[in-house]
Formats: sequence, C-alpha cells, structure tokens
Amino acid sequence: LTTDFGTRDGYVGAMKGVLAREAPDAVVVDVAHDVPRHDIAHAAWVVATACREFPSGSVHVVVVDPGVGGARRGVVVACGGSWYVGPDNGVFAYLGEVSAWQLPVAEHVVSPTFHGRDVFAPAAARLARGESVGGDRVALAGVLPWGARRAGTGRVVHVDRYGNLVSDLPAAEAGARVSIAGRTLAVQTTYENVGVGEVVAYVGSAGTVEIAVREGRADTTLRLARGADVLPG
Amino acid sequence: LTTDFGTRDGYVGAMKGVLAREAPDAVVVDVAHDVPRHDIAHAAWVVATACREFPSGSVHVVVVDPGVGGARRGVVVACGGSWYVGPDNGVFAYLGEVSAWQLPVAEHVVSPTFHGRDVFAPAAARLARGESVGGDRVALAGVLPWGARRAGTGRVVHVDRYGNLVSDLPAAEAGARVSIAGRTLAVQTTYENVGVGEVVAYVGSAGTVEIAVREGRADTTLRLARGADVLPG
Amino acid sequence: LTTDFGTRDGYVGAMKGVLAREAPDAVVVDVAHDVPRHDIAHAAWVVATACREFPSGSVHVVVVDPGVGGARRGVVVACGGSWYVGPDNGVFAYLGEVSAWQLPVAEHVVSPTFHGRDVFAPAAARLARGESVGGDRVALAGVLPWGARRAGTGRVVHVDRYGNLVSDLPAAEAGARVSIAGRTLAVQTTYENVGVGEVVAYVGSAGTVEIAVREGRADTTLRLARGADVLPG
Repeated sequence: LTTDFGTRDGYVGAMKGVLAREAPDAVVVDVAHDVPRHDIAHAAWVVATACREFPSGSVHVVVVDPGVGGARRGVVVACGGSWYVGPDNGVFAYLGEVSAWQLPVAEHVVSPTFHGRDVFAPAAARLARGESVGGDRVALAGVLPWGARRAGTGRVVHVDRYGNLVSDLPAAEAGARVSIAGRTLAVQTTYENVGVGEVVAYVGSAGTVEIAVREGRADTTLRLARGADVLPG
Repeated sequence: LTTDFGTRDGYVGAMKGVLAREAPDAVVVDVAHDVPRHDIAHAAWVVATACREFPSGSVHVVVVDPGVGGARRGVVVACGGSWYVGPDNGVFAYLGEVSAWQLPVAEHVVSPTFHGRDVFAPAAARLARGESVGGDRVALAGVLPWGARRAGTGRVVHVDRYGNLVSDLPAAEAGARVSIAGRTLAVQTTYENVGVGEVVAYVGSAGTVEIAVREGRADTTLRLARGADVLPG
Repeated sequence: LTTDFGTRDGYVGAMKGVLAREAPDAVVVDVAHDVPRHDIAHAAWVVATACREFPSGSVHVVVVDPGVGGARRGVVVACGGSWYVGPDNGVFAYLGEVSAWQLPVAEHVVSPTFHGRDVFAPAAARLARGESVGGDRVALAGVLPWGARRAGTGRVVHVDRYGNLVSDLPAAEAGARVSIAGRTLAVQTTYENVGVGEVVAYVGSAGTVEIAVREGRADTTLRLARGADVLPG
C-alpha cells in the first residue's frame, strides 16, 4: 500500500479492513503513507523504487488521487510479474514496460471520494485471491510534468526526507562527473569522501545519480527542486 | 491498533512485542498512530469509520488516553461481532449499540503510564486467543463534548489530513442542500463539480455530508472546527 | 524494523520488499520509522525499550546510520535470545550484555548509501530463515555522548513525542524523591496526582524515573534536553 492518506485518519485502516475481509490470507504491507498530499510524481518514484524489490506476484495498491471521482480512470497494471492498482494519473509513470486494463467501477456502491476503499482495495483483494478483475485493455494516459527522459540527460525526479536530490540519470550515462545548476561534481563512492556540509554526487540506491549535502539538505542548500537538469560531465 | 503514540518512540513497538509474545498467531494491523495527542474525539471517529470495515471477530485496541493511571477505567466493548479494548473516555462514542465490561487491572504488574502495553495489549491478546477477559458489565461513561446527535441536525465531528470537514449528518437527512456557517451549498457528487479553490459539499465515505475546498483546505478557508453546525437545507 | 527513514519515501518499502522476497515466511513488524534523522541515541532507547517486549528468537533491524558507506561497520548482535542487525554506531548501546559479530559486506553488490536494503535486510532474512550470517566476533565500538551510567546517578536519555523526559535512573535507586535542574520532586504514582500544567516525576514504563508536565511538555517547560542530570533525593 502506498498512499498520501497519512496515519492520523482512518483511511488507511479502512482499506486494510476491506483487504482483511475480502482477502484474509493476503499479507498486507505498508510501503509509504506520508507521500505529500496529491503529489503524483513523488508517489510514482516511491512506487517504482520500492515495489520492484517485492517478489513477483505481489499486488501493489497506490492511492494518490487528487482527481478521485472525476474523469481520470482506475487501472490495473501488470509489470515484471506483479500487479499495480490505482488511478491512471501518472503514479505508474516510472514503472517502464507495462500492460494496463481499465478498472470497471460499479457506480452504485462507490463513494465519490474514497476509491481506495471502494474500488482499488476490492480489486487488489480479487487479484490477491487469484481472480481476474476484467476491464478493457488501455494505454496509460497519466504523465508527469517533465515527460520521458532523453538518453544522455537527467532531471531531479525525487527529493527525499533528507533533502537529497535524486535524479533519473543512470550511473552508466553519468560517468565520472555530473553538472547541476552550474556546478560540476565528481561522482563519489560515499558521503564520507566530502566534509560535513559539503555537496556530494554519488550513485544512489536506484542506480542513478544523487546530489546530497553531507549531514545537511541539498534541496535547501542548492535551492533546487524536481525538474532541475542533472547532466553528464 | 489505533493510538496517539506516533511512530518516533518505542510505544507502538512495545505493544506489538506483547502481542507477538502473547498471541503469536494473531495478525496485527496498524490502523492509525498519528492521532493528534490526547484527541479523544479524533480517535473516536477513526475507530468508528475504519474498524467497521474489518471482518467480524476482529480485536481493536485503542490507546488515546490522557487520563492513564487515573480514575478512568479500561473496558472491553463488543460491537457488531468484534471486540474493542481501551480506556472508557469517549473513544468508543461513535460505535453505536455496544455491550461493555470493565477491564480488571492487576495493579502490581502495571506501569501507571503505559496501559497500552501492560493492560490493553495483554487483554487483546487473550481475546485473540479466544479467551475471556472477565470483568463486570458496565455502561460506557466516556462522552464527547458535543453529546449525541439529534435527528435532522449535524455537527462537524472530524477534520481530516486534507482539512476536509466531516459531519455526522447522514446523506438521507441532508437532502439536496446543506447550510454551514451561513452558507448554503448544493450537495455535489464529486469534487470536480466545482472549480479549484471553491467550497464543495458532498456525501463522504462515511455516508455523511462533508465540506471540502477543492485542492485546498476547508478548515482554514472557512475558519471552522469540530462542533460547527451542519444543517439540512 | 526501526529506522529514521520516515514513511514518505520508498526506503522502508524497499527493505520490506527484500524481506518478502528472501524470507517470505517471516512476519515483518514496524517498530518505529520516524526516529529523528540521524539521531542514534533516540534509536538506541527505542530499540532497548520496545524490542525487549518481543519474544525470544526475534530478529530486529535498526537503520539509523549517518555514516553509511563510511568507516563504521555493520554488526549482528545477540542479546536475550534475539538478534539485532544494524550499524555499530551506538544504536545498540542500551541493550546490556551482548555478543556481536562483524557483518561481511559484499562490496560489489551494495549501494554505498542504502545498507538497510542491501546489507541489513538480507542479513536479517538469513537469520529469520535460521541461517548463520558469519563474520568475526567483535566488541561493539559505538558509544553515546554521555557514556555509561554510574550507579546512584541518572541522566535524561530520551525525550518522547509528548515532551516527557525519560531518564535512566532506575526506580529502586531513586527512592521517594529526585532532583532535576535545581528542583526536587516527589516520585508520584500517576499524572493525576498533580494539577494540569504542573511538573510531575513518576516511574515510567521502562522502570526508570520520568519527568512530565501534565497535559503539557516537560522539555519546553523546563528547557531541558538529553544529558541533563536526574539524581536521587
């Protein structure tokens, strides 16, 4: 489960109740519930980097859904032998090669504001039980503001809790140096190669270049946000 | 488990340790741990709306307990085929029809400040194992500041993470329009019926009227809090 | 699992994915993920007080690790019949009598910044499957700023979500009164022995003296932090 519901209200609990009721043998795992409100791009990165560690056959439910009840459709996505259920608004944009099906919505049983409980959790329960959820084959329509990456270029795609700037520039394309906001940085192997408070580039846990400030925050120190260019050289 | 313990200290972990030790076959589910500190009414709404989604036979533990170690008693509550364990301070006020029993406290083994670990978790473990927890039958004494709802009227009973104002006015009593703080609002079927930043009323996931600001916060925009009237028409 | 990863990024989820893949029969329990960033002493207290409630044979993973990828080593610690896995930086300082082994790191497969996913979770999975993780026997090197406690003295070692000041002074050494920052306080049996807003000392859930302000925060009221003396009398 990945949501922006936080853990102060009952929304996550209600989804878990549905899953306990409709798929009692499924093991339910919290991936992240404090995704910033309505931040589709943040959720997309969390889903892509965390969910790929799970074993094949997992069912992932993603609910970061500012347009709930409106025109955006719900989808079931197959990727790498696992299932993903959620809104087609961009939260699956970093998964890579996928197949997707539109999720049928039984209008009469559904809250217009809580598809997590009434649409996505029941669909995930059916998948966890080994059943099909039906629906037409579709191409995903949800996109992120910065579009797809061009080879040889990168952008900051995620800012984590520590203020680290995570790019989508793969290590193999970066080489020994990267430039960001007019600075050129050597790609280091560990934070400890620079002093406390200094800026450091390194290959992060996603296999892409990240920019950090040792024991500090790169986002505020460099005044950079998502979308900033991270280029080889 | 629903608590105001947060997830920075070891309190939730200690309760889970007790449950792992004393009811090793039980599946432990986090409902919400970031209930605002000592906010009994907040917890009461979370419990009522989230726990009712769980299958019959579940055991729910609620620890939002500013009077721990004092005069308030612990209780076991039966409602809808499931069990609820916690302090009798109002956290079960929205459950509806219940039966309740006072929880015996073995004074000599108990921390005066952590009944979650020393009283409520052990009682829940016994219930999960199918055992009885004994104690005298009692009527719940805990009440919320605004008392019981009168038919044809409603109040804001919960403000969620998004700043949405959740009332206890059922959709069937509200009809097509509601009034709140001098405004009259049509009850819409989705947020997308109004523009970004506009106020919208709709039937929320609890089946009651909610007031939101599309992609904004109704609590700060309308300067309203719990207890505010939400009336039909 | 105890970390400072928070629940907005995918780091906790990635660790859970590794555990689901490599130890599918293990039950994974969240102890605390909102440990303040890089706060080793905070984590040490959470681990010592929460993990001791779990049944013997448990495997605890602790990732609060400002020096990840640098000189500090990873360790496996045996204590009280359970296992602890994490960095040797002080997070195990409150466990008491332990045995420890250095965790071998396969340099070529490991992210320099995410040993939680690439070193500690896989080691925990092997322990959960009943396998050995090898490595040389070592003495723990990680220490906290205030060193070990001397009998008859205590310090504030933890400040919890509520602003309560938790000391390491055992109840048996404290007796009927304690002094802190020039105040002498009777050790009470419950918060309710003092008025709202007053300072109260009592024996907390760890069996040590705590200082609180009833329905307030002792840390801000008394302007005290970790390391402050809490003395008998």
